[in-house]
Parts: sequence; C-alpha cells; structure tokens
Amino acid sequence: MTRILAISGSLRRRSYNRGLLRAAAEHAPEGVEIEILEDLESLAPYNEDREDERPATVEALMARIEDADALLIATPEFNTTMPGQLKHLIDWGSRPYGPDAALYGKPVAVIGASMTDYGAMWAQDHVRKALGIAGARVIDAELSVARAHERFDEQSNLLDEDALEQLEHVVRGLAEHHRALVEA
Amino acid sequence: MTRILAISGSLRRRSYNRGLLRAAAEHAPEGVEIEILEDLESLAPYNEDREDERPATVEALMARIEDADALLIATPEFNTTMPGQLKHLIDWGSRPYGPDAALYGKPVAVIGASMTDYGAMWAQDHVRKALGIAGARVIDAELSVARAHERFDEQSNLLDEDALEQLEHVVRGLAEHHRALVEA
Repeated sequence: MTRILAISGSLRRRSYNRGLLRAAAEHAPEGVEIEILEDLESLAPYNEDREDERPATVEALMARIEDADALLIATPEFNTTMPGQLKHLIDWGSRPYGPDAALYGKPVAVIGASMTDYGAMWAQDHVRKALGIAGARVIDAELSVARAHERFDEQSNLLDEDALEQLEHVVRGLAEHHRALVEA
Repeated sequence: MTRILAISGSLRRRSYNRGLLRAAAEHAPEGVEIEILEDLESLAPYNEDREDERPATVEALMARIEDADALLIATPEFNTTMPGQLKHLIDWGSRPYGPDAALYGKPVAVIGASMTDYGAMWAQDHVRKALGIAGARVIDAELSVARAHERFDEQSNLLDEDALEQLEHVVRGLAEHHRALVEA
C-alpha cells in the first residue's frame, strides 16, 4: 500500500487545485490511498528562531509528511510564483538540512491548475526547485491544467477526461517510485 | 519628505536583512524617513475566500503600505526563493488587481542578503517579478549582500562600508523616484 498525502497550495474552499486532488483521491488505483491535507492555512510562518521549539501546527504537519509514503502537491500560481503557505511548508520541511528534515528523501509529484493558458507552470517550476534543494525526490511528472475555469464545474469537480487521465498517470508514477524505493 | 516602509522577508530577530534595513534607517538622507515593519509574522495567509472580509492583520498592513510613499524590501533566500510571509504580503497587496490594490503604483526597491556567494539573488528576482505583476513600480536598484555572516556583527549590524554605500545609493534612488512621481 502507498499512502499519499495530497496538498493544495490554494487555500480557497472551491480551489481548482483542491479539485484536482479530490479527483486523484476518487480515482486512486488499487494499492494507493490518497488523503487530502485540509489545514495548510493554520501552518505557522517559517521562522528560524522557532526551529528549536516548533509551533504545534508545524509539529503536526511535519509528522504527517514523515508518516506519508509520498506527497502530491497541486499549486496555483499567484503573481508568477507559488503561494506563501506552500513555501512555509517547504521551508519547515527542509530543516534541519539533511536526513532529519521531513521532506528529505520523500517522493513528491508536483502538478498545478490555473485559469491562464499556462496552468501554473512557473509556480510548479519554483516548487520543484525548492523541493529539490530541500532534499525531496521530485519525480519526473507533469500536469498543468490550463484555463481551469473551463475544465472544472462550479464545485471544482474535474470534468476534463484528458486531464484526469494524465492525473492518474502521475499518481501511478508516484506510487511506482515509492514501491521501487521500498524494494531497493 | 519621503516616508519609506522597510520590510524584512526574514522573521528572525537577528536577521541580516533586518540588519540591512536598520542600517538604511540609521543612515537615511535628509528628507527621507525609514520605518521598519515589525510584525510581518502575524500577517494572515493569503486566501481569496477572505478577500471580501479581510483579516485585521491584512487590513492593518495594507493601510501601512498605502500610507507609505515607497517600500524597501530586503529578502533572504530560502530553498531558492522568497519566504512565505513576503509572498503573502505581495498576494494580499496585489488584490483586487488594478488601481485599488495596495501595491499598485507603489515605488519599491528590492535588496537582499544571504550567507551564500549570491546574496539572495534569485529570491530578489522572484520578488521583483511578483511585485511587477502586482502593479508596483519596481525601481532599477540592486544590492545583493553575499556571505552576510562576514559583513555583519553578531547583532546583525552592518559592518561593510561598500555595502552601506550601495544601500545609501538604493535609498536615494527610491526617494528620487518618489519625488519625481509627486512632481509629475
């Protein structure tokens, strides 16, 4: 069994990125369980001064990341890059630098949706780079859902069959990566 | 008089970036007043669902930005890009897109310090791009303080004369930009 923690960089309730993760969870293949993180908004801001006595919201999220076999991160793009709470997650997850960091060695797939023609491409790129430096295993997977308002319904349910197929491909790739690690 | 609000992207107390801003304030030229923002850490995360009824921390910070003639932003670089709270400031400050946004038309200089050989260069670049999209007037000014641990004392007081000179140049440029706007 591969247990994936799915994280939306957008905090709004009807976010397209959250919709993507919901679709991934509903269509998870056998042997894969996807749980969606619901409280990224409460994560305390990254502050090096608080590293020795981390806020409870940080402890809780780091424990969930450590406990998961892999992460599926869906990011929107605000002002050309990723949202702040996702950055806080990466910064907390990168410390202390090295094997004790929650993100270290963790398989992660990064996807994204936006209303533009580019599907949060730059934000995804920044997220991948930051995760890589943090020591995560960023898998070679892509899904940029462009013009999201045409591909989701008003409850942010994914309607687009092609995007769903790509999404299932990403999830399978992530699970395979995890299984290969376990078997190695 | 030009009133500059100075913002450190790093939240730690003895941050080099905060040290840079303190040096800028202490050496402000005549006719320029620099006030350092002390409570970025308390800013609520950007969430589009809360735009119509913004949290009090957002209202307060947006009012201070609107009230300032210009902004001086000093950013560290964490995992190749800017910290989360600075991103929340930009995202809140960009909405609603257009002239009603707090950052719209605001002259801003972006500087940075880090312990690497690059002085938070990429983080600065991302901050400038995000501010530009948000509608701010990002002025053509540069200051990347590399190997910051060698250029500040333990209380993060700036010791490097060259860096101080460049910093004064940036502040003069920012104030001139503001005066030109007022006179235009």
